[in-house]
Amino acid sequence: MRKHEFKDLLNPESVAVVGSTSRNRFYFLRSLVSAGFKGAIYPVNPNVKAAFGYKFYPSLLDVPDKVDLVISEVPARVTPKIMEECIKKEVKCVVVFASGFSESGTEEGVRLEREIVRIARDGGVRIIGPNCLGIYHPEHGLAFRPDLPRDPGPVGFVSQSGGHAINFALMGKVTGLRFSTVVSFGNGCDVDAAEILDYLAEDPKTKIIAVYIEGVRDGRRFFNSLRRAAARKPVVVWKGGRTEVGGRAAASHTGSLAGSPKIWDSVIRQCNAIPVKSFYEMVDTVLAFTFCPRVEGRRVGLVSISGGSSVVNSDYCSEVGLEVPQLSEGARAKLSKAVQSVGTSVANPIDLAGSFMNMNAIKTVFETLKEESVIDSVIFELAVQYPSFYADFIDNPSLSVTFYNMLVEECLKVKEAKPVLIAIPQVAYEDAQRYVRDLFVQAKIPVFPSVERAANALKNIISYYTRGGSAAYSTSECLEPQSR
Amino acid sequence: MRKHEFKDLLNPESVAVVGSTSRNRFYFLRSLVSAGFKGAIYPVNPNVKAAFGYKFYPSLLDVPDKVDLVISEVPARVTPKIMEECIKKEVKCVVVFASGFSESGTEEGVRLEREIVRIARDGGVRIIGPNCLGIYHPEHGLAFRPDLPRDPGPVGFVSQSGGHAINFALMGKVTGLRFSTVVSFGNGCDVDAAEILDYLAEDPKTKIIAVYIEGVRDGRRFFNSLRRAAARKPVVVWKGGRTEVGGRAAASHTGSLAGSPKIWDSVIRQCNAIPVKSFYEMVDTVLAFTFCPRVEGRRVGLVSISGGSSVVNSDYCSEVGLEVPQLSEGARAKLSKAVQSVGTSVANPIDLAGSFMNMNAIKTVFETLKEESVIDSVIFELAVQYPSFYADFIDNPSLSVTFYNMLVEECLKVKEAKPVLIAIPQVAYEDAQRYVRDLFVQAKIPVFPSVERAANALKNIISYYTRGGSAAYSTSECLEPQSR
Repeated sequence: MRKHEFKDLLNPESVAVVGSTSRNRFYFLRSLVSAGFKGAIYPVNPNVKAAFGYKFYPSLLDVPDKVDLVISEVPARVTPKIMEECIKKEVKCVVVFASGFSESGTEEGVRLEREIVRIARDGGVRIIGPNCLGIYHPEHGLAFRPDLPRDPGPVGFVSQSGGHAINFALMGKVTGLRFSTVVSFGNGCDVDAAEILDYLAEDPKTKIIAVYIEGVRDGRRFFNSLRRAAARKPVVVWKGGRTEVGGRAAASHTGSLAGSPKIWDSVIRQCNAIPVKSFYEMVDTVLAFTFCPRVEGRRVGLVSISGGSSVVNSDYCSEVGLEVPQLSEGARAKLSKAVQSVGTSVANPIDLAGSFMNMNAIKTVFETLKEESVIDSVIFELAVQYPSFYADFIDNPSLSVTFYNMLVEECLKVKEAKPVLIAIPQVAYEDAQRYVRDLFVQAKIPVFPSVERAANALKNIISYYTRGGSAAYSTSECLEPQSR
Repeated sequence: MRKHEFKDLLNPESVAVVGSTSRNRFYFLRSLVSAGFKGAIYPVNPNVKAAFGYKFYPSLLDVPDKVDLVISEVPARVTPKIMEECIKKEVKCVVVFASGFSESGTEEGVRLEREIVRIARDGGVRIIGPNCLGIYHPEHGLAFRPDLPRDPGPVGFVSQSGGHAINFALMGKVTGLRFSTVVSFGNGCDVDAAEILDYLAEDPKTKIIAVYIEGVRDGRRFFNSLRRAAARKPVVVWKGGRTEVGGRAAASHTGSLAGSPKIWDSVIRQCNAIPVKSFYEMVDTVLAFTFCPRVEGRRVGLVSISGGSSVVNSDYCSEVGLEVPQLSEGARAKLSKAVQSVGTSVANPIDLAGSFMNMNAIKTVFETLKEESVIDSVIFELAVQYPSFYADFIDNPSLSVTFYNMLVEECLKVKEAKPVLIAIPQVAYEDAQRYVRDLFVQAKIPVFPSVERAANALKNIISYYTRGGSAAYSTSECLEPQSR
């Protein structure tokens, strides 16, 4: 008896936090409050009378009103009892935070997990978890940390790991990414990755999906869902436990059997989803999808400040399969007039060299790249250790502020025609790095910590689009994601 | 006639900056002053009477005293004339900043470069450059930027690119690396990579050498020097222009013919030097050499705060060829008592989970890893988004400060027995990231922005030592490098 679809679980009118305790300073309760949950919140703990302005109830059954969602913080062995109470209260869904179920590898853990699944199926209540953090759904004010962005956005994330769910959501603060729905589903004994994927595929507010998965019980079902989702919007899949020892760790983490990474990668690709190998590659790729217009061509215009950077940035792009074509003769003629020519290459890569703070030269560079038909996208390595140093050096620190703001304007013009990706090397001038990054992020231009990572993310989205992947939104929508 | 060896060029008693100009705000003059150059400085420019408290001379020949080193900022076409004056003044060495020589690909540029080489050879003056920044030798107060660390250290860097030379030197500020001698040698028409390598190989203050090279004119000579240097100390080689398009950029940058990357990598390895593919890999590897005791075993103890991180960190280590072995039974027994066991793995990787701020648990973890014979080194992923969040959450922000300082103490104890590498994920809590990084850097424990990068650097130094590479210093010296 499955009374509730996953989509019915995301907008509860009321939440009970069962087992809310001072030991963790009422973590989940406070997460809901911080996220601005607008419905009723009922903390349940027989040993607490009140905290944070909330009256506590001795048991779930004592809550006088209906309860849609239960977040259960009680230990594994008490969970079956709480499940029974949920059925009596006609709760739709229980998030089970406790670990100590099948992932523990013990007989008792396996038995307990079977038992809660049986209770749930018989009684028509859904389970997220166990061994999970549950739901971050900022639009409705659901959250599993008090410090996540409160505003929603276009990214959906299905994560078997609570830690990665927290980390990705937190990274929204520095990348500008915002989320529709993030689900940490842990052991996935009832609601699983496939079901969440099915939902995110249909959800009009989710434009891009990321998945962190350690293993699946029903491979056919998962890959069918993945294929359907990837036919509708970009899906980036990070497989944890790609190696023997990683697989061993996954077994004790979420009870997952890992499977061969080669098979995973090839099946993910067959589904037209994008396999990634690390947390940062996942974030970078989602970032490129979110803030770049659709792009199929591999020809990059590379702009940087030093000759040595031009050389190695060309290497980084070529090594991931991007092209760095020579510009047309017309474009080169225009650039050699504008950019200080000594020690400079303007054929592409473009070395700004001594013109690195000459705004007229830079305008010409960006205008030329915008119009140049042999260029499909632009990667600009903005090494702040030059402009920020120079502004200090000439005793005019505000110059760099003016300069950086003008750069953003120029990049926005290019973005009307093709993707622009910014790389800010993590070298020195850390305050300037952060300041400049935030300027570009506010302008919805994606920022990466190196040209290598920008190039790899760009390659990933190009591969998806050239295989016929559908852009989740048009260029104009892309330019205004709901992400800030 | 080669009157002066490279080592004679590094300790000039007097420097003349010829062509020092207000257009670049007397950049090289001010770099020397900022670096604390203790000898005489003579700025030369017929159009300037005085600046920054310095009297300017109309020409080099007007300088009343002897001049050991000339930094020439004059344009390419004027350089031969300056060279002639240098010979008259019996200058030992000229750093030629100007570009517009052979790298320009023009007949005139090639002719000019031949001419200055001829003048130099005939007159017994050495040239660094042209198209370069010259020498950063903090011990003697030579520098090519005013914002580089003033204290010297164990790292030597031979760089065909001025930009990379600046970037690496600047990164000293955030990594704790310090430098003996950094030379940006540009086109290398006289002093070249081989000669600088020969010097650094012999220099007792240089413990580790890094090389950025785009191409060499005399391959046999370069690789002989590389082999000799790598027999004495670790040499990390980053080849720029590894790809066709990177090679094209290198040709216009330093006039270098790039050569096949595969051949380069294999010859570098044959020399027992360490090939790296990127700026960050170069920095990371030098960092590991500088702050890790000699290590030959590949067995890593992995510590992190979440189960998902344990899984993927195991993947990252395995994928570069490190091992993450299960701990001995005794060790596991000890750990399962100390670390909150629910949802936690203590077999290795070790997931601190809910014990992430329990100092007694953490002490046990580090003590155990220090003593555990199946573990050769430790990578600790310190995700500050947990402790720093938690300290705020419980309204006790100073708690995290105490906590981080205690962590450093524990890691220092492990380092008495084996290398400890810290990875601070770049997720959020950026102020905390920086604060914690600086704490570890001050303790001479290397910090990386991800476990991936820490693991790769560790793999690089292990490969070097297992191939019989000699540690440049013993463990005890390593624990006290001259780097801060």
